[in-house]
Amino acid sequence: MNLNKLLFLLYFSICLNANSQNLDGYKLWLNYDKIEDPQLASDYSNLVRSIYLSNSSDILKNAQNELGRAIPRLLEKNGSYTATIQPENTLIIELFEKLPSDLRLQLENDFRTTNDEGFLIKTISYKSNPVTVISAKKDIGILYGVFRLLHLMQTHQKLTTIDLIDSPKVKLRMLDHWDNLDRTVERGYAGFSLWNWQKLPGYIDQRYIDYARANASIGINATVLTNVNANALILNPMYLDKVEALATIFRSYGIQVYLTARFSAPIELGNLKTADPLDPDVQNWWKNKAAEIYKRIPDFGGFLVKANSEGQPGPQNYGRNHVDGANMMATALEPYGGIVIWRAFVYSEHDDTDRAKQAYDEFLPYDGKFMDNVLVQVKNGPIDFQPREPFHPLFGAMKQTPLVIEFQITQEYLGFSTHLVFLPKLFEEVLDADTFQKGKGSTVSKVIDGSLYGNTLTGMAGVANIGTDLNWTGHPFAQANWYGFGRLAWNPYLSAETIAEEWLKATYSSEKAFVEPLKKMMITSREAVVNYMTPLGLHHIFDTGHHYGPGPWVDDLGRPDWNPVYYHNADYNGIGFDRTPTGSNATEQYAKELETIYNDTRKIPEKYLLWFHHLPWDYKLKNGIDLWDGLALKYQEGVNQVKDMITTWKNAKPYLTEGQFKEINMLLQIQLKEAEWWRDACLLYFQTFSQRPLPKGVDKPAHTLAYYRSLKFPFAPGIRPQWD
Amino acid sequence: MNLNKLLFLLYFSICLNANSQNLDGYKLWLNYDKIEDPQLASDYSNLVRSIYLSNSSDILKNAQNELGRAIPRLLEKNGSYTATIQPENTLIIELFEKLPSDLRLQLENDFRTTNDEGFLIKTISYKSNPVTVISAKKDIGILYGVFRLLHLMQTHQKLTTIDLIDSPKVKLRMLDHWDNLDRTVERGYAGFSLWNWQKLPGYIDQRYIDYARANASIGINATVLTNVNANALILNPMYLDKVEALATIFRSYGIQVYLTARFSAPIELGNLKTADPLDPDVQNWWKNKAAEIYKRIPDFGGFLVKANSEGQPGPQNYGRNHVDGANMMATALEPYGGIVIWRAFVYSEHDDTDRAKQAYDEFLPYDGKFMDNVLVQVKNGPIDFQPREPFHPLFGAMKQTPLVIEFQITQEYLGFSTHLVFLPKLFEEVLDADTFQKGKGSTVSKVIDGSLYGNTLTGMAGVANIGTDLNWTGHPFAQANWYGFGRLAWNPYLSAETIAEEWLKATYSSEKAFVEPLKKMMITSREAVVNYMTPLGLHHIFDTGHHYGPGPWVDDLGRPDWNPVYYHNADYNGIGFDRTPTGSNATEQYAKELETIYNDTRKIPEKYLLWFHHLPWDYKLKNGIDLWDGLALKYQEGVNQVKDMITTWKNAKPYLTEGQFKEINMLLQIQLKEAEWWRDACLLYFQTFSQRPLPKGVDKPAHTLAYYRSLKFPFAPGIRPQWD
Repeated sequence: MNLNKLLFLLYFSICLNANSQNLDGYKLWLNYDKIEDPQLASDYSNLVRSIYLSNSSDILKNAQNELGRAIPRLLEKNGSYTATIQPENTLIIELFEKLPSDLRLQLENDFRTTNDEGFLIKTISYKSNPVTVISAKKDIGILYGVFRLLHLMQTHQKLTTIDLIDSPKVKLRMLDHWDNLDRTVERGYAGFSLWNWQKLPGYIDQRYIDYARANASIGINATVLTNVNANALILNPMYLDKVEALATIFRSYGIQVYLTARFSAPIELGNLKTADPLDPDVQNWWKNKAAEIYKRIPDFGGFLVKANSEGQPGPQNYGRNHVDGANMMATALEPYGGIVIWRAFVYSEHDDTDRAKQAYDEFLPYDGKFMDNVLVQVKNGPIDFQPREPFHPLFGAMKQTPLVIEFQITQEYLGFSTHLVFLPKLFEEVLDADTFQKGKGSTVSKVIDGSLYGNTLTGMAGVANIGTDLNWTGHPFAQANWYGFGRLAWNPYLSAETIAEEWLKATYSSEKAFVEPLKKMMITSREAVVNYMTPLGLHHIFDTGHHYGPGPWVDDLGRPDWNPVYYHNADYNGIGFDRTPTGSNATEQYAKELETIYNDTRKIPEKYLLWFHHLPWDYKLKNGIDLWDGLALKYQEGVNQVKDMITTWKNAKPYLTEGQFKEINMLLQIQLKEAEWWRDACLLYFQTFSQRPLPKGVDKPAHTLAYYRSLKFPFAPGIRPQWD
Repeated sequence: MNLNKLLFLLYFSICLNANSQNLDGYKLWLNYDKIEDPQLASDYSNLVRSIYLSNSSDILKNAQNELGRAIPRLLEKNGSYTATIQPENTLIIELFEKLPSDLRLQLENDFRTTNDEGFLIKTISYKSNPVTVISAKKDIGILYGVFRLLHLMQTHQKLTTIDLIDSPKVKLRMLDHWDNLDRTVERGYAGFSLWNWQKLPGYIDQRYIDYARANASIGINATVLTNVNANALILNPMYLDKVEALATIFRSYGIQVYLTARFSAPIELGNLKTADPLDPDVQNWWKNKAAEIYKRIPDFGGFLVKANSEGQPGPQNYGRNHVDGANMMATALEPYGGIVIWRAFVYSEHDDTDRAKQAYDEFLPYDGKFMDNVLVQVKNGPIDFQPREPFHPLFGAMKQTPLVIEFQITQEYLGFSTHLVFLPKLFEEVLDADTFQKGKGSTVSKVIDGSLYGNTLTGMAGVANIGTDLNWTGHPFAQANWYGFGRLAWNPYLSAETIAEEWLKATYSSEKAFVEPLKKMMITSREAVVNYMTPLGLHHIFDTGHHYGPGPWVDDLGRPDWNPVYYHNADYNGIGFDRTPTGSNATEQYAKELETIYNDTRKIPEKYLLWFHHLPWDYKLKNGIDLWDGLALKYQEGVNQVKDMITTWKNAKPYLTEGQFKEINMLLQIQLKEAEWWRDACLLYFQTFSQRPLPKGVDKPAHTLAYYRSLKFPFAPGIRPQWD
């Protein structure tokens, strides 16, 4: 009977955990779990034994609030606070200029290297006592420093003495929300838009505050609230009142609000006959609109604009060009310090050049012609957020224009929110890529942080994966992509491994036996998705519109360059897109050093093989096997990698609540099923051209090609509604 | 400095509460807050000192799970469990037939009055020891009994001896979800659909389980997953797999799943040329479909059908009638015990009779002609979920057909999820109404519970107000409407006051000084909304389509009976809809006793005055003042009542966390603003006819009529998307 009783108790305690699990997901990497290690707990308790911090601004108040939230959870006691700086203090949190002179003197040197958003956490001595100081030039640095200290505690770092100086390397660290006014989210897989326009401005959802907290904790300082496929209504007074309410909250976490500006807004809202950027009435309309916005939101960031792209209106509708359009808006914003972020994601239905070449062709001639408060935003690759692309050739090539790199945090072409894919590995690959545009070592990172060409206005943007799901991102591990984007925007030189480790520790557990295999799983996950979706440089073979699941056979869309067959070019002779001089010659858009490599099948990394080359089915890969067999084995490898992820997760069970374990396990099972679907559908389809059997080691498909082609998903999430 | 320190600590503890608040909303009335009263805590601890309960079914396992969740939270200790029934047990939870014979003997008599879903909680003696027994005829009764015991603890009832027998009085206690397959919710104001069809069946969201728990805790035993404006795709195998996954979870909480059946599905899914209910191919299609569903879901409930109503297809498209359509489906479901719920919400664009009369006219002739497994579902009033309507004349009149009453828990015409309106007060008014159809005392309750005409199949349906918002219902007090609907479906004779008190105690606090004023506020809230929206029997004067805010001036919609002017009939002579013999004579659809009252302005309750009568502006109300003045003062009274609600809430602050206080306070401020909007817009508009000044005591409007008429809300939530 005692055993029975024990089992009962065990059973109940599991239920309890299971139940609390999904609310835990809400807390993100800020869960502030209790420090169980007695030595650490004692050290940290000493650190917060006597805290001084000022609360003279909203941002500083929020730094205090965060300590007030975190310390009682981490240490099961409150921190103790003094009203002025005292010799007894163990932790002093204050702006550099307000520190007592003897402290300033000790830190002066460190402050030469920090910028306006940077901070320092350092153990020094004050009146002969050791004290840890968090200091910064501005309030926001204090907030960042407090978040960092709490992160260090949550990840169990030794903090008896600490010496940490950190400043963000990129100025605009920005989330792009593709959120529509009806709360649907284009390419959103985590529910619906956080912005409850109906209840704003009167009702401030706690989620707005927690969203801002999460962003500030990783240094994100800008948010574009609305979809680049824009609705002009957001610029109407009724909506601006609502935007103002959000901006007020976000300001207190150092986050500036941006909006997308629909180019035709002067017609739609202003009843003008034209939106021609050279028309004085149009110019005036935008000037007045800017004044109207800045009256409400003095620190409004500016406009993000998608113009003359995928049906969006733009200056070309009036025979003008991108420079005319961008500079017209920049002129309106300039008096207030606002900026224009002009997207380079263009490809024309009237242009039958390789789509991968068009943005470069269209934008390079404008280099140096944009006003100083214009940034051009370029997607990481030349097509569209594929599991793998070479970096966009505009990086490094556009030398006199600051470029914002646009990553997609949401997983449009990456299995939505049921696939575990750690995207910082993808981001890292792009950032580390060498453009050679100013000699060897001219990495994309150096373009982005401005160090290559000396830009002061710099930026990194991520298309958000955030929605109304309880855990914010749908897949719990997709939180790591939000986290990792923020960390890389802060410091593009961080490694994906470091980020994975930080996130795992802050979110789940700092136990090495948990962290190490899980980190490996996260790092591998990106290659897994490439393998089971688009190995060896394949791309854009996704099913129509929703981009959920494979559709390599799709050939009936209105524009050639929307069809997968355009991209893989499979036929009886072979597969791949010839972008060498015998084909579209897209390779010429890269620096000579890279052009040579990309043009040469013996030199090109095989991960880009079919991106740049059309090759016969019996082309010999570096490992000596035929292309067809190699392709098939890559698909199988992707599936096998997902199976390994499932095993890794099962082994991690001791470190997880039952609820945490089950949730991810369910998702991994879906991912496995869909990886198999990708493998089977793609191989069956390509086999109709290769006419070759599947090599040994590749599983037999579960269904026929006709079955896979018959699958329809009319309500797949993330598609733009028809009314837009 | 000590004071300063104290203030700091206070400040931090407030922040902490503020932060936890919005996660608390997720827990609904099942928050299981710690029992602080030492005597109660000790009594309850004694009660759970030694528990026996069997776990031989999924439902019983869930009863155990709930104890495992609740007891540690309520009492900060685990209950202790025995594997068999023991003399030491303090709490025995077992089916009646499995109890030891000496316990059975003591309870035998009690079980004569319980039905299959009922339960008993009773303190008796076992082997000379006092023991509390929860027992029932079926597993579901056990689950209900456990939830009730936990509710009694959470609401601080004395349980040293307990003697409680309870059985539901209505058989189908059903939520109707108007959820679309794209996750929008028609008339949904709490986010989007809980059903994440994309991730089903592989991913089981914890919310599905918590939804089922919440429903089971109040006795809801049926759920219609999909919108009555139906999409046939839900009946496709791909979706049925997903429905099966939900049904499996819900079954373990005693909840049966129903679907809406689109009448034209045989054409849309089956490629038939017709959906004529007398066509053998159509009949076969439905038979096969039923077989297909029951193979997956053996306890599938059946179909809810909206046919030939507001554009939905139906039997009339083929020259057949409602009986033909309903019986055809009922024949398909009958072998499996399934039922058809056929909605009587019909009004024809080709019928210029008073819309309030049409459902009665159309359905009464079919009385007695439906098969035994058909129920007809009738909205509570003859128009459409207005803040106040007289009961629907079909209740009591349709004597040989079981009627399900359909209430709207979501607040389509009631201010969406920003207005605090306690709907059980509305439900109670309808249920208590006397139809006189079988003499005095023939209340709607008695129609619904089957006691009036001896129906065994009985039902109450509520259009759900549940969505993806963290707190489920948008407005925290809207949780009380879900709760209250469930309680009234269980027992239509419960008072709204009792329900308000139960809910307040379970959700917030059992402190009398908190509960009493809040209960009063909740009870008043329904009259407040009637006053500031549609006083004295006005109805359907809402703005177009979305029904958000006032639109008494709207006169341009496609059908006359969609226009507010159709309903209020205001002109220079007066206002109101004449439904007496000089007008539409809708009063004749009620029993003689009521007809006489309704026809007579001296007898009719003034709350229904303008529903049934068109009266001059100088008509003298019972209090002696002119109709115009009375109407204006009623609008003002509604506004004043909201102001009182704000005061009540401010006074309740000591019993609330900062977060709880602020959230409702923000919502009440919105409600006040909108109540004033209603008053000002309606009075300014009606004043164009009455040509009279506002009486003393009525505030001057803040804007002009033109301003109110100019307001547009293109993205108001809850409207059906265009693709349907």
